[in-house]
Amino acid sequence: MSSNIHKPSLEVCLSPALLHLFNTKDTITVIIDIFRATSTIVAALDNGAKSVIPVASVAECISLGNEIDGSITAGERDGKVADGLQYGNSPTEYPIAFVSGKTLVLTTTNGTRLLHMVNGAAEIIIGSFLNIDAVCNYLIGQNKNVLLACASWKDRFNLEDTLFAGAVVAKVKDYFTVNCDSAVASLSFHNDSKGDYFNYLKQGAHYKRLSGFGLESDMIYCTTTNIHPIVPILRGKELVALK
Amino acid sequence: MSSNIHKPSLEVCLSPALLHLFNTKDTITVIIDIFRATSTIVAALDNGAKSVIPVASVAECISLGNEIDGSITAGERDGKVADGLQYGNSPTEYPIAFVSGKTLVLTTTNGTRLLHMVNGAAEIIIGSFLNIDAVCNYLIGQNKNVLLACASWKDRFNLEDTLFAGAVVAKVKDYFTVNCDSAVASLSFHNDSKGDYFNYLKQGAHYKRLSGFGLESDMIYCTTTNIHPIVPILRGKELVALK
Repeated sequence: MSSNIHKPSLEVCLSPALLHLFNTKDTITVIIDIFRATSTIVAALDNGAKSVIPVASVAECISLGNEIDGSITAGERDGKVADGLQYGNSPTEYPIAFVSGKTLVLTTTNGTRLLHMVNGAAEIIIGSFLNIDAVCNYLIGQNKNVLLACASWKDRFNLEDTLFAGAVVAKVKDYFTVNCDSAVASLSFHNDSKGDYFNYLKQGAHYKRLSGFGLESDMIYCTTTNIHPIVPILRGKELVALK
Repeated sequence: MSSNIHKPSLEVCLSPALLHLFNTKDTITVIIDIFRATSTIVAALDNGAKSVIPVASVAECISLGNEIDGSITAGERDGKVADGLQYGNSPTEYPIAFVSGKTLVLTTTNGTRLLHMVNGAAEIIIGSFLNIDAVCNYLIGQNKNVLLACASWKDRFNLEDTLFAGAVVAKVKDYFTVNCDSAVASLSFHNDSKGDYFNYLKQGAHYKRLSGFGLESDMIYCTTTNIHPIVPILRGKELVALK
């Protein structure tokens, strides 16, 4: 355990509607949208996508897809590929053979919106269970303040993003000053889950919603740790894998 | 355990900044500000106060105190009795011999603000550990939708209000439909606390702040269950003990 002196701070923001309470300048912000935007971004980049460009609307996705050679346009609304787009928002849809070398233009609701909201952050990276250890090791190595920012569901607190935040807090807390009740609470969930993330999340509203769309296998994938050990980082408008 | 059919809903709002996401019409809203507004209100009313009038500002508190015969003006800022007021915001300051038959005009920051924000709710009651079973029994008996509304700290999520919400969820969940991740999360804290509320809350930012003001004994009092088994309810601008 490192010393208490000069440790950077670690905070958790439970909803975009609370983001204004946090200082994102000089802070590494980790965007968290476990079901499924950030899981999909991590999978696509680990499988060789050149970059992922997150956009807010279907129209913008189509338009940008037309501009960029070798791009894939993707996004869902209500659990189905949105009209005018090619692919969905599942991390399992982007294997190496398909996505390698391409630019994925992805429209999601909650994750993309939050990412655009924290635009002033010193650095923005992408977190998911699929890359949790890579994210934690990166955060420990930077020695900067960190905000774990949950995308939530239409500003409503959600269980899966907060559970991930708690899993990160559990791994990195000795390296940070944690004086944030949301971080303490996230850790508490994580303790209560006993590491059985998928089953713990069966209590959540999003589990019910997504399993109604037949997406249970996606949720199992999204709650599996360290399948894709990379750190996506925002460079301009593009997310790329940190080398 | 009652049947699943036609159970009213139970939700938890973690911060006043999220209140707009909930429907408070036709809903019993429970205001929660454990450290210490709602604890003080419950104690004063159980000890015979005629009513408690919560007001937002010190100036309003003084002005209303002048208008009402037999009133006590009370409120703190930064852990001290506010200039111009007579008493503080401690549940132990209002014994029967002192408060019985009087009107307590109380100014607090977070709790009062939230109470005024939910003014459109069908019914507003006051919750604290001091009256938790009385609140739970009342909620079970009403068969209406319930919102447990945490006052938080300047809109920031806090541990003590959410822990109380979780304790309520644990007691009443069989009588309600709980399809709210905040409620599930609150229950998770409650599980993690193992019922040792005071020690669990030592992790919280508010514990550190209030113990800095020498208010540890107040926090012990505020985390003790069922000392004051009444249900305060808002009637017009006054909180009175439900008979």
